[in-house]
Amino acid sequence: MPDDLDISAVRPGQLLARGVCRHLLSLDFVSVEELTPERGLRVDVMAMGRKGEIWVVECKSSRADFQSDHKWQGYLPWCDRFFWAVDEAFPVELLPEDTGLIIADAYDAEIVRMAPEAKLAPARRKKLVATFARHAALRAHAARDPGARLWAG
Amino acid sequence: MPDDLDISAVRPGQLLARGVCRHLLSLDFVSVEELTPERGLRVDVMAMGRKGEIWVVECKSSRADFQSDHKWQGYLPWCDRFFWAVDEAFPVELLPEDTGLIIADAYDAEIVRMAPEAKLAPARRKKLVATFARHAALRAHAARDPGARLWAG
Repeated sequence: MPDDLDISAVRPGQLLARGVCRHLLSLDFVSVEELTPERGLRVDVMAMGRKGEIWVVECKSSRADFQSDHKWQGYLPWCDRFFWAVDEAFPVELLPEDTGLIIADAYDAEIVRMAPEAKLAPARRKKLVATFARHAALRAHAARDPGARLWAG
Repeated sequence: MPDDLDISAVRPGQLLARGVCRHLLSLDFVSVEELTPERGLRVDVMAMGRKGEIWVVECKSSRADFQSDHKWQGYLPWCDRFFWAVDEAFPVELLPEDTGLIIADAYDAEIVRMAPEAKLAPARRKKLVATFARHAALRAHAARDPGARLWAG
């Protein structure tokens, strides 16, 4: 199995995010990690489908990680569908039933429960796609030209 | 000066693109390279500003490189402003006057002549921002997880 990541160097939630992003890609959703839709709010994974659908996935590595998250309802206005991603040992009965559920590991993931859809208003979707584009372009730019950061305003 | 690129391994046009993208970043425009807005058409640099402005920059390393490009007018419908980027030895009198001009090297660039604006229609801009987002996210994903390509549909 391909594995170019130094697994020991990253947080467990990031490993779940890796598997999640791979699975989303197989569904033709592109994704970014750690996007900030508004000040003070950072989502683990934001994904965009072919029709501009926006999904948010929060990755929780443990019960404590989930229970310490007091912000998650703040993510709901920033996506069409909201999912949790957890590993197979996670006590899924803790998670609200009206949210999506993804079981993941570092290598892949599976959608176990589709999230209900709450469609973004057109103006917010437009802004969010632009935010997504900007975030992704900055990451891609940093990857192809590490020296470029010195030019950022 | 920072330089993480193996200069000998890339084409001259790509070196210009690097300097162009750095300068655009200093203007708060994010950018991607080699984006395909429609089949058969690939732009060297597409940049997006804070208000969703879309600029296209074609990088020409020599007179022959410019003269062999028979597609450039096809780029005009895909941006609000169109620029050429050339190095300081390029015979700029060859370039059409009603286009923008950027003088670049591998490290930085400067806009010498602002391109006239021909605003995209809203529907096309919307589609283009989504295409830009998708392209950028795929590149950023490949950079953070090289193994992800195997999941692509």
